[in-house]
Amino acid sequence: MKKIYSPLTEKMIQSLQCLPGVGLKSAQRMVFHLLNKDREGGKLISEALGEGCDNIENCSTCRMLTEQDICSICSDDNREESLLCVVETPADVVAIEQSASYKGKYFVLMGHLSPIDGIGPKELGIDLLSNILNQGAVKEVILATSVTIEGDATADYIASIANDKDIVPTRIAYGIPMGGELEFVDSGTLSRAIDGRREIIE
Amino acid sequence: MKKIYSPLTEKMIQSLQCLPGVGLKSAQRMVFHLLNKDREGGKLISEALGEGCDNIENCSTCRMLTEQDICSICSDDNREESLLCVVETPADVVAIEQSASYKGKYFVLMGHLSPIDGIGPKELGIDLLSNILNQGAVKEVILATSVTIEGDATADYIASIANDKDIVPTRIAYGIPMGGELEFVDSGTLSRAIDGRREIIE
Repeated sequence: MKKIYSPLTEKMIQSLQCLPGVGLKSAQRMVFHLLNKDREGGKLISEALGEGCDNIENCSTCRMLTEQDICSICSDDNREESLLCVVETPADVVAIEQSASYKGKYFVLMGHLSPIDGIGPKELGIDLLSNILNQGAVKEVILATSVTIEGDATADYIASIANDKDIVPTRIAYGIPMGGELEFVDSGTLSRAIDGRREIIE
Repeated sequence: MKKIYSPLTEKMIQSLQCLPGVGLKSAQRMVFHLLNKDREGGKLISEALGEGCDNIENCSTCRMLTEQDICSICSDDNREESLLCVVETPADVVAIEQSASYKGKYFVLMGHLSPIDGIGPKELGIDLLSNILNQGAVKEVILATSVTIEGDATADYIASIANDKDIVPTRIAYGIPMGGELEFVDSGTLSRAIDGRREIIE
């Protein structure tokens, strides 16, 4: 592409393309927006991303993103220590927290087993997870990885580790979502919903 | 929303929502991507946006975005001084430059007349434009504002200024796009295409 923008404008446009889902046209639009209408916003992004990328690390216990050594959930004494929910991403923690239906602790894998991408147990921090399970406080490991081949494989792998340590592994229920109509639900989900049926106890 | 993220993560997510088209979910996704997979990219954005928002101003001649006093197009002696193309945004300059069909200079209005938003001739830099036209080098003003009511009004307004100074105002042609099929073209465009018909000269 011909150089039409000034070097700094060009640099802004190039840099924003590091964001997922942002291509050349969106990056241009973002830069013009920031320069013409929201320079304060631009400076705020600059400051927040600079600070964040330098200081945010993984919680040394559960691998959640945090700038402290131990995240706020791990250091919260009011949460049940006997329950540990294993999820793939920090966003999953947020989704579960927002449902306000869980009071235990978490472990964030930051991915799922995927040998083809070189992601094995080590990359997912399974040694860290084993340490937690060895401490004896956890009685149940809730496996909330995604319902994909990789997510299921990851759950099975962790379930076998838990079994070896006499800890109950459970998988969260997959089935018809609330308000879902049977005729529009995909057959994979429907098959899981039928497999996972429960007796109605009066 | 409950505070689940660490303060710095929260700040990153909030700040990215200053970008147009980026809501809470996209901002989360961007932050996780940067923190997990592309911290270098995050620092690059931080640096580029910081530098850019502090240093990029409008070219003192044509109002294009640049960190120099005069932009690279205005300071290029190889461009025809007799042609001046008036556009609404810096992105329009880039689009025309990429078509490689124009060798004159530009004037960027940074918007269009819109009294309801408080945008009048002053906000569009019409005084600066008048100064350029008064210098006598420009023989033709090409009005390439958008084909909307506001864009047309802006073009008409500038055309009358040019007429007063004995400079020829022209409007770029609007019609059927290349490869366009008549049956799928909207009636506004079709009506413009018929109005703008030209004699076929053998």
